[in-house]
Amino acid sequence: MLQEIYSMIKKRTHNFINDNTTVAGKLFDYLVLLFIFISLIVYALETLPDLNIEQLAILHQIELLLIIFFTIEFFLRLWFAHQPLKYIFSFYGMVDIISVLPYYLHFGFGFSSLRALRIFRIFRALKIVRYNRAIKRFKIAFNIIREEIILFAILTGILLYIVSAGIYHFEHIAQPKLFNSVFHSLWWAVVTLFTVGYGDSYPITLGGKIFTFFVLIIGVSMMMIPAGIFTTALMKAREIEEDEKNKENTASNHSIDKEIDEIS
Amino acid sequence: MLQEIYSMIKKRTHNFINDNTTVAGKLFDYLVLLFIFISLIVYALETLPDLNIEQLAILHQIELLLIIFFTIEFFLRLWFAHQPLKYIFSFYGMVDIISVLPYYLHFGFGFSSLRALRIFRIFRALKIVRYNRAIKRFKIAFNIIREEIILFAILTGILLYIVSAGIYHFEHIAQPKLFNSVFHSLWWAVVTLFTVGYGDSYPITLGGKIFTFFVLIIGVSMMMIPAGIFTTALMKAREIEEDEKNKENTASNHSIDKEIDEIS
Amino acid sequence: MLQEIYSMIKKRTHNFINDNTTVAGKLFDYLVLLFIFISLIVYALETLPDLNIEQLAILHQIELLLIIFFTIEFFLRLWFAHQPLKYIFSFYGMVDIISVLPYYLHFGFGFSSLRALRIFRIFRALKIVRYNRAIKRFKIAFNIIREEIILFAILTGILLYIVSAGIYHFEHIAQPKLFNSVFHSLWWAVVTLFTVGYGDSYPITLGGKIFTFFVLIIGVSMMMIPAGIFTTALMKAREIEEDEKNKENTASNHSIDKEIDEIS
Amino acid sequence: MLQEIYSMIKKRTHNFINDNTTVAGKLFDYLVLLFIFISLIVYALETLPDLNIEQLAILHQIELLLIIFFTIEFFLRLWFAHQPLKYIFSFYGMVDIISVLPYYLHFGFGFSSLRALRIFRIFRALKIVRYNRAIKRFKIAFNIIREEIILFAILTGILLYIVSAGIYHFEHIAQPKLFNSVFHSLWWAVVTLFTVGYGDSYPITLGGKIFTFFVLIIGVSMMMIPAGIFTTALMKAREIEEDEKNKENTASNHSIDKEIDEIS
Repeated sequence: MLQEIYSMIKKRTHNFINDNTTVAGKLFDYLVLLFIFISLIVYALETLPDLNIEQLAILHQIELLLIIFFTIEFFLRLWFAHQPLKYIFSFYGMVDIISVLPYYLHFGFGFSSLRALRIFRIFRALKIVRYNRAIKRFKIAFNIIREEIILFAILTGILLYIVSAGIYHFEHIAQPKLFNSVFHSLWWAVVTLFTVGYGDSYPITLGGKIFTFFVLIIGVSMMMIPAGIFTTALMKAREIEEDEKNKENTASNHSIDKEIDEIS
Repeated sequence: MLQEIYSMIKKRTHNFINDNTTVAGKLFDYLVLLFIFISLIVYALETLPDLNIEQLAILHQIELLLIIFFTIEFFLRLWFAHQPLKYIFSFYGMVDIISVLPYYLHFGFGFSSLRALRIFRIFRALKIVRYNRAIKRFKIAFNIIREEIILFAILTGILLYIVSAGIYHFEHIAQPKLFNSVFHSLWWAVVTLFTVGYGDSYPITLGGKIFTFFVLIIGVSMMMIPAGIFTTALMKAREIEEDEKNKENTASNHSIDKEIDEIS
Repeated sequence: MLQEIYSMIKKRTHNFINDNTTVAGKLFDYLVLLFIFISLIVYALETLPDLNIEQLAILHQIELLLIIFFTIEFFLRLWFAHQPLKYIFSFYGMVDIISVLPYYLHFGFGFSSLRALRIFRIFRALKIVRYNRAIKRFKIAFNIIREEIILFAILTGILLYIVSAGIYHFEHIAQPKLFNSVFHSLWWAVVTLFTVGYGDSYPITLGGKIFTFFVLIIGVSMMMIPAGIFTTALMKAREIEEDEKNKENTASNHSIDKEIDEIS
Repeated sequence: MLQEIYSMIKKRTHNFINDNTTVAGKLFDYLVLLFIFISLIVYALETLPDLNIEQLAILHQIELLLIIFFTIEFFLRLWFAHQPLKYIFSFYGMVDIISVLPYYLHFGFGFSSLRALRIFRIFRALKIVRYNRAIKRFKIAFNIIREEIILFAILTGILLYIVSAGIYHFEHIAQPKLFNSVFHSLWWAVVTLFTVGYGDSYPITLGGKIFTFFVLIIGVSMMMIPAGIFTTALMKAREIEEDEKNKENTASNHSIDKEIDEIS
């Protein structure tokens, strides 16, 4: 009897957590999404400098309720996972844990370290990704161009190193504070190659300016290529998806034809 | 008799408003375009700080004439619309209303609120869009990549949130004025990820700089991808258009063939 | 007799000016290119502020020799043009005239206006374009996407207008000097939308910052699309070129086949 | 006997240097990569301003050991090269030489010139490229679009020249220090066209601002096109590679079919 009730509850709960084709499942999904948004906004509001104690108390209470909700959500997902360990160490599992764990941990370390741990709450934003089916296409696209991405990561690394060391060579005597070492120059290299150009550091010597001239001509294009490659891969991933759909349709048509044949 | 005159006027007016294949229709289109341009320039001129009363009076008189013209245009379009309500709530209908309504409204609220309402006049620029047929291709392109655009909107939102909260964590002690809260940090995040880099706020701590390093490497490429995707979709929309044209041509050829067959 | 000599000179001169398959023709091309480069460098050197009178005299003398050379080149090209008037009003003809005319004109207007006319000498750089055959591919690419380019020009215009008027609305009270009128705000709009971000003007009000947030999200992508479209068109122009080559080859193969048939 | 030992050593050494399919060869590759990374980090660390003599001594000793290793590596590669001279003047040969030569050279010129020569050590980063097979695809892509790249290099040169000379014309009276000559203006042109915008120099005159407006509209797109072209070429290079693989597979399948035919 208890066994039956248990399995009935498990089945029903399972439906509204993992099956988003039912009304209950959809409602649960929207509820989680809503709570993620509230959680993110609460975190952002807590950083406002002019809050009084009452306002902070309200925010803390909302956060407590959210923690309870996300903890229950985590244990429900763990309960229904075919392989609980695999779920825990999956991307979504890690995000689910990081979303609540810091809150429980800070009791052990005392109140003072709370602020530092709080930062992990921002990763709750990644929980949203679970609800987007188009993310699958991204994975396909990444797999297509993995080699190119690794190559560009290496080339970007080499370029940043040579550019940093080069500008250090040209500028460290004229501007010893800004180009103090290769590591300090790396900041300039990143801000320049991604064309941000805050204006906090820039070359003032003739050599440094000529060097920057060539760095920009070669480097800026290189920084843009990964975005271009990824776009092409994304379009390819799309074609692959559509091909698969067409195949499925053709396959099902075939089986329909077969059935018709069998009937007639 | 009156009925006849009315229907004749309606037909004639209809021709030069909605039918841009006739000379009168084309002239009317160019007239509207010209008046939109004048209207935009008048608005810009009114913001000049050194105008004397006479110059302002001239600009106001031109604006009055334009308002009369656009009001007449609106009512004519309403008159000839098959479904007047549908026209009013369409994109072009809304733009047409917003182009003139603020002027009439401010009489009700008094002269003081005129300046604030004036801003809506800039949306007259959107009236130009009506005269561009290539805009149709844009709509097709948008429909093709709707899913990707929504996905990127969500991912951009998540990225901006994590980046804002992250830089707040690193910089709010060192620069309490610029990185006062997550909301203040969001300004830095947007200006950095879109590589504008005004230089009004930038990280100065080591942690903030290293964080920015990774943010730029991952984020800048991500901000560029939507432009790439849209470009590809626009090219696809083009092919679809050309295919349709070819089909039409083939279809008309077929019907010609048929006619020839019938004749012979 | 004289007639013969004349026609012989004309033919020979024609060869080394218009026929770049002969050695003389190639040498003449390289000579013109060299003189263009010298001319551009001389112009740049003349702007150096610390030149003494002797150095200036040398530069002026080189310029005089170049003027003589370019004048002769112009008249030779005019002499051999099938339609002299068409040549004069062609792109290359205009560039050739602008390259030398200002020098002769300033004698009529006196020495004082020399500096202002000098600026036209920089267009000699465009003379280089004549020597690049790949420029043809550019023209094909431009023709393919003419419609899109016009559309984007209009959309960019509308966007810049709305953005300028919008930021003026938000910032002109807080920063009356920088956002003095819609025209002043246009400078900010351009510098922001193309992500240059000098840092000479940026929004400081909350409304202005939120407005900039949306402007960047919508606008930056839009500014990048023309480059993407042009790239695609350039690749298409390439395919068209290769197709034409293949056709020619097939055609010539066919004619060879025919000849072989006729022989056998 | 000695001959035998020599040839055996040569063969074995050859294996772990040039054959990265064996375990020894792979280990050697990883060892070289590790030493390159250490070398780059040591160079960067040496530029830190607050090092004491002991720390510098340790870094110099590590550098000495690396020099010995890279020298041995160079001579081993030279020993096994089919054409030693060709290896020396190849890209990798040059990088290998530049990686160690400065160290030996400075003994001849004395200690004072050491710092200036040290800069060449950063090119050791290029030694990493040897270990990346995807770099082959890059070469194919570059060959595909060589013409376009040259064309864009020329157009960029012309654009930079005209922009520099143009802004000099507009700004050199208002800002004589920043736009002192065409060469000084070139710095502004590069920083603006690549949208870096440090904010160290920008136009302040109306003419200069209007000029910049047009420069940005035309120029920024042009600077982005090479990245787009290269992306397309990279995707084409990929297809070529895959086609070749398929051909090889088909070819080997054919030969297998043949063998089967022969057997049966």
